[in-house]
Amino acid sequence: MGSTTYEWIRAHEQDWPYEIPCWVFTHRQLEAPPGAPFSFAGGDVAAVHAEMVAAAGGRNVWIAGGGDLAGQFADAGLLDEVIVYFAPVTLGTGAPLLPRRVELRLEETARNRDFVTARFSVVRGSPRHLDAEG
Amino acid sequence: MGSTTYEWIRAHEQDWPYEIPCWVFTHRQLEAPPGAPFSFAGGDVAAVHAEMVAAAGGRNVWIAGGGDLAGQFADAGLLDEVIVYFAPVTLGTGAPLLPRRVELRLEETARNRDFVTARFSVVRGSPRHLDAEG
Repeated sequence: MGSTTYEWIRAHEQDWPYEIPCWVFTHRQLEAPPGAPFSFAGGDVAAVHAEMVAAAGGRNVWIAGGGDLAGQFADAGLLDEVIVYFAPVTLGTGAPLLPRRVELRLEETARNRDFVTARFSVVRGSPRHLDAEG
Repeated sequence: MGSTTYEWIRAHEQDWPYEIPCWVFTHRQLEAPPGAPFSFAGGDVAAVHAEMVAAAGGRNVWIAGGGDLAGQFADAGLLDEVIVYFAPVTLGTGAPLLPRRVELRLEETARNRDFVTARFSVVRGSPRHLDAEG
């Protein structure tokens, strides 16, 4: 996860909620949560990817947030799936889900209470940066 | 529909595709399509709403686009439903779906080929403008 997601969790959760190993991508000096298997990482996500895959031991590696971090993995061709929960509200403004152009393939969709959920696979070779004007 | 949607259709379609009456909201002087029941409108959407509802004769009135026009109906408490088709691509930037904060209630969701589709009802009293900083 990125540092914004990390700091949100630390501010809103009494205890660190994950028992699985976690990497926080940041260029800043932040305090690690007590007890949990935990690392700070920075720079090229591809270098950290191999370490995360090895720790996962065949299970999925979850990019918890935010969108730009997921986009960095997409840039490196290391993003396999995008799972989206659409909330029943329009905000009118805010951060894009994933600040890249990424072609997806819809694998499954369902309803989960008030949310529309969808799992997409990433179509390889599609991510590319957009300039500010799109 | 708004003038951007209207001009896109005129530029991309050989013939005007609708036989039902259509109102285009614009402050500009535009050319009407030949033959079809058609009006240009401007100003307060609430004033035109009654005319559209009467013409619909109990059927739905469809706000074809764009999001800001739908937002003006939401502001006036005249938007009942939002039907969304989510395309399998992230763009990273672009216009918001509906440039307002509007609370919705998920009524149904389904898959239509490559699209996730969802029909939401508008929770009354929710629309309000956001300033530029959200």
